[in-house]
Amino acid sequence: MMNHNVADLPSGPLNVYRNKASFNWKDMVRFIDGEDIYLFKQHVFKTLENDPLFARQPGEDVPIEKKREVNFLRMKQLLRYNFVTKEEAMANPWKAVYLEDCLGMYDWALVAKLFLSLGMFGATVANSGSSRHKKYVENTEDMRIFGCFALTELSHGSNTRAMRTTAKYDPSTQEFVINSPDFEAAKFWVGNLGKTATHAVVYAQLYTPDQVCHGLHSFVVPVRDPKTLLALPGVLVGDMGKKLGQNGLDNGFAMFHNVRIPRENLLNKTGDVTPDGRYVTPFKDPKKRFGASLGALSGGRVYITRMALINLKLALTVAIRFSAARRQFGPKDTEEIPVLEYQLQQWRLIPYLAAAYALENFTKSIFMNFVEFQIGQMMKDKSDTAEMGREIHAISCSSKPLGSWTAQRGIQECREACGGHGYLAMNRLGDLRDDNDPNCTYEGDNNVLLQQTSSYLLSWLHAKQFDGVRIESPFHTVDFLEESQEILKSRFTALTVDDCVDSAVPLAAYKWLVCFLLEESQKRLEQERALGNDDFEARNNCQVYYCRSLAMAYIEHTCLQRFHELTTNQDTPAGLRPVLRKLCALYGLWSLSSHMTTLYQGNYWSGRKPAELVQMAILTLCSQLKDDAVALVDVLAPTDFILNSPIGCADGQIYNHLWSTIMQGSKVLERPSWWKEFCSDKPVLGSLRPKL
Amino acid sequence: MMNHNVADLPSGPLNVYRNKASFNWKDMVRFIDGEDIYLFKQHVFKTLENDPLFARQPGEDVPIEKKREVNFLRMKQLLRYNFVTKEEAMANPWKAVYLEDCLGMYDWALVAKLFLSLGMFGATVANSGSSRHKKYVENTEDMRIFGCFALTELSHGSNTRAMRTTAKYDPSTQEFVINSPDFEAAKFWVGNLGKTATHAVVYAQLYTPDQVCHGLHSFVVPVRDPKTLLALPGVLVGDMGKKLGQNGLDNGFAMFHNVRIPRENLLNKTGDVTPDGRYVTPFKDPKKRFGASLGALSGGRVYITRMALINLKLALTVAIRFSAARRQFGPKDTEEIPVLEYQLQQWRLIPYLAAAYALENFTKSIFMNFVEFQIGQMMKDKSDTAEMGREIHAISCSSKPLGSWTAQRGIQECREACGGHGYLAMNRLGDLRDDNDPNCTYEGDNNVLLQQTSSYLLSWLHAKQFDGVRIESPFHTVDFLEESQEILKSRFTALTVDDCVDSAVPLAAYKWLVCFLLEESQKRLEQERALGNDDFEARNNCQVYYCRSLAMAYIEHTCLQRFHELTTNQDTPAGLRPVLRKLCALYGLWSLSSHMTTLYQGNYWSGRKPAELVQMAILTLCSQLKDDAVALVDVLAPTDFILNSPIGCADGQIYNHLWSTIMQGSKVLERPSWWKEFCSDKPVLGSLRPKL
Repeated sequence: MMNHNVADLPSGPLNVYRNKASFNWKDMVRFIDGEDIYLFKQHVFKTLENDPLFARQPGEDVPIEKKREVNFLRMKQLLRYNFVTKEEAMANPWKAVYLEDCLGMYDWALVAKLFLSLGMFGATVANSGSSRHKKYVENTEDMRIFGCFALTELSHGSNTRAMRTTAKYDPSTQEFVINSPDFEAAKFWVGNLGKTATHAVVYAQLYTPDQVCHGLHSFVVPVRDPKTLLALPGVLVGDMGKKLGQNGLDNGFAMFHNVRIPRENLLNKTGDVTPDGRYVTPFKDPKKRFGASLGALSGGRVYITRMALINLKLALTVAIRFSAARRQFGPKDTEEIPVLEYQLQQWRLIPYLAAAYALENFTKSIFMNFVEFQIGQMMKDKSDTAEMGREIHAISCSSKPLGSWTAQRGIQECREACGGHGYLAMNRLGDLRDDNDPNCTYEGDNNVLLQQTSSYLLSWLHAKQFDGVRIESPFHTVDFLEESQEILKSRFTALTVDDCVDSAVPLAAYKWLVCFLLEESQKRLEQERALGNDDFEARNNCQVYYCRSLAMAYIEHTCLQRFHELTTNQDTPAGLRPVLRKLCALYGLWSLSSHMTTLYQGNYWSGRKPAELVQMAILTLCSQLKDDAVALVDVLAPTDFILNSPIGCADGQIYNHLWSTIMQGSKVLERPSWWKEFCSDKPVLGSLRPKL
Repeated sequence: MMNHNVADLPSGPLNVYRNKASFNWKDMVRFIDGEDIYLFKQHVFKTLENDPLFARQPGEDVPIEKKREVNFLRMKQLLRYNFVTKEEAMANPWKAVYLEDCLGMYDWALVAKLFLSLGMFGATVANSGSSRHKKYVENTEDMRIFGCFALTELSHGSNTRAMRTTAKYDPSTQEFVINSPDFEAAKFWVGNLGKTATHAVVYAQLYTPDQVCHGLHSFVVPVRDPKTLLALPGVLVGDMGKKLGQNGLDNGFAMFHNVRIPRENLLNKTGDVTPDGRYVTPFKDPKKRFGASLGALSGGRVYITRMALINLKLALTVAIRFSAARRQFGPKDTEEIPVLEYQLQQWRLIPYLAAAYALENFTKSIFMNFVEFQIGQMMKDKSDTAEMGREIHAISCSSKPLGSWTAQRGIQECREACGGHGYLAMNRLGDLRDDNDPNCTYEGDNNVLLQQTSSYLLSWLHAKQFDGVRIESPFHTVDFLEESQEILKSRFTALTVDDCVDSAVPLAAYKWLVCFLLEESQKRLEQERALGNDDFEARNNCQVYYCRSLAMAYIEHTCLQRFHELTTNQDTPAGLRPVLRKLCALYGLWSLSSHMTTLYQGNYWSGRKPAELVQMAILTLCSQLKDDAVALVDVLAPTDFILNSPIGCADGQIYNHLWSTIMQGSKVLERPSWWKEFCSDKPVLGSLRPKL
């Protein structure tokens, strides 16, 4: 037994629930994280806790400029800690992911600041450039320069191809001249650009001297002097100001007025300009070139899915520990029961807990898919890689919406489930919601991204129907569609609530659902075309209730399928399987609830029974899992220092922590500095009322 | 024609849509507000705009202490403006409501600060006290003292009867001695108490010298010296710190240690203590006494419903104007179309616009019901007033959840629909969401409140079945239940999308739905009782899918019913009826969508057709209303100064306003004050990594 490696949690009001748990939470930690990762996470947590630079007070009111300064200093300190070396990351890519998890639990703005310079800027330069750009990558690594990634403009986000910044080649000096035609084409939303970036990867329309536009390309453009952090001539660069969250990160804008950069600063993997001004490219089709140059973006969505999950885990830890400790009402006036005992509170929170476990497994599995794709690319096994690329694109374009929306709704439910105390900034649910919110928007708006996934699915159906292709993909997310005709004939067969308390039930329903929505979406698309609409309009008119629902059902099915496999796998410890199976069944049934109308519409369900059985099964599972809920969040929770929420502490002493945090707040008992404004200068009622 | 009284809006990119509108927006303003109210609102808006004290910069980063100071100064200024005198409010109670609307559009914290002292403290003292307490009310009016309302404690919110603060009568000095037994009983969340209140209405358990507890009573307790704003001896009073929103309001806590107040400070309407320490009360049943002493709370929920609506209106103004001006993608690469043209964007926003119109009518109608109830009470027509009281309680306990959740979800959708720009603080969608959020929690947690409504409905069914009572209520919200048996036999009969584009369709479905859920809830309750559960447990186990859904369906039905009546009323101007009918049909069908499973479950619907017709009808209505959407928000929008959102301005120049706001931000182009932290003291990678 190595139980001693996973530390005990402090005892307190949560003991009642912990003692009732049906499984050993330490075994679950070992199963989900593994002992090494558990110890690594604890090491990171403790290192931050022991460093005064990382100290903070829950709910403190920090001005934005201070937030940005402190975030920058912390980022520098992280370089000094260098928790995962390059070599370690190569040997075990999980370690880098877990490090980001740990730091994100502390503050996503910190992760973003580091990642945007080293990862986004560095990796884009490395992947889109050539040997001549190596120096930029090296200079980023020891912070001689500081990078950012500038694609979005003020008036264009989703429609990347419509960017209007220009880079015109001047053969007389062998330079590109970068210009923003007007402020609507200012680079916008660029993380790190507000205060700190010295260099930017700028996407601009490349023009050769013959006035031919060769489309969007990326360039390394110096924007600030690394010696002074002052803007370079011709660059108008600044800070966009306050955002809803993640304010440690300085998002900025930049406009360029005849900014000259050397010819070599073009990141030339997908196209280059010769010294005399001729455009040369290995790609024949400009669309393919464009796709390849944006390829570097695709990976981010996989990790954003996980970022959202991390936020959800933190919110659930706060809300479930609070619900287990907070008592309100009871069968008798003299005795109050924990609010977690109420059916309504269970139904509000426990399905999200199940979703967190489902997403924990899912985010790892799609990360594995992505790594496999990357390795494939490095191995140059192009044909199979292309299929992998298409599939991972379809997965990530829907996993990000699934993760970010589940987290957004879950955090809001957690905030409301904690009542007034959830509305206190110090308990962190507001920050979690605000920091999670952009996950719905950046790296592609969720609703726009979902169209990529539905198009992928429709293209499979088309290939099967018109080219007789067998539906089979590298990561197997669409394989079941091959059996579509049989699946569409299947019907819901459960007869009792007991029958339903099994993830096989929602899984079968989801298979039917995806097949049904796929067929219906295709029909609808054909109808639209038959009406004479062009492809653009036809596709737009099939989104609501069809393509959008199809993409969501597909990714929910994939997530459920993989969780189902985990919970039925014989390698999963027998002691954990029962609780995991309950979580899986609950996740599946609860997700399915949002599609019940479609199940009836397509006659997979009919009559009163099916919906009632599913509803009763959900309530049954919530009730069965409520005694496990505290232990289940113990598995997901970071240390109290990292969680930074008085009502979410591991000892469950919600009021002690809350009170002591309040009493140590700034000027909490002092009269306001402006007290004389009350005591003198009393208003005379109506003295400023216009005399009529 | 009096068109000249409603001012034209500035022209710009929104003209395209305004010119396509199917109705005259000025006529709609006159219909909804009336000319006098329109002018009054403009007067309030302009007065604030012309007063530098009310100036602000969109998205500025204001420290909390400064927010509280500025809010206090603005509140004093409002007393000087005295926009609505007492006499005017008596003559036209709408004027006071519209004033709160106007000020709330500016900042709810300002309304709250004023209302909590004058309204909540003043009115509670007036209603719960007697002539001897008149001085407190008068002193509040000219701000000699400043009031607050202290009921909630740190460990008790919803369960008001469990409050633990004590007031023990000491006949030797004829004083009450107020004590907080421990900090868990500290008064908590009290608005105005953080920094400014001098007096509090404190709810405490009243003990007579014979050690008998007579339950919760309210007392006027001085907490700070009005001459210095310093806490009085024995009172530990302070500020709870940062909240997610409404930070202009200073919420506070207080603990009392042997604080002595004169016997007369007991608000003695429902019970008094004689000088020698005997308890006397006009009520026999202590439960009735308790109910009466909390009666003063009920009115607030009606107005909170409207507060939420106001927030939704503002968010919709921002999101719809933005969507009409923002262009992204298009049928050709060279031409982009407004995002409002996309089916998906319409479906995300326009149903909320319909909800705003439905709620505009509904919040007014329930305010009328409440006024009628109050007048009834003053007339002492007790018997009918009691029924009115029960019904207005049931309405307000569900209208607050309906309003606050609709706004919460709608604002979030608006924020996401504006993409990255929605995430910029300056565009105000974050503040709107944060300021709206507590509407879900205060004056009763939404989920807890809904139980009051379902209990009311179940009690009607019980009265009918067991006492043969005819179901008929003063405000007619339950009258249709009398026909329950016939309604339950009805079925969905629409055959085409055209049939469905009529609010009569969802209205009929809602009647069936409420009857069905009422019957099912009762059955479920009986089953639970048959299992041997006590009343407390039985009720708790019937909430999800039954009582909670019942309460929501009831209030949605009431809201739809009243909107339907308005849109079909011959007094409604003929030129406005078509657009109002579309809004009403859309609201009804869209709300109904969340109950489709139940419609299938109970066999009101069967087969594929009904859901498909409703879905197609929703999309048809969204598409028909998209050209009206800009004009519809023009009707609801305040002036640009009040809206305070660059992307929401009436001229639709989204980028000009955004850019100019950013450029005028604080230190936007300056290098950070901490620039040397970048330029020197470069981190050495791994220098702090533990040597192993």
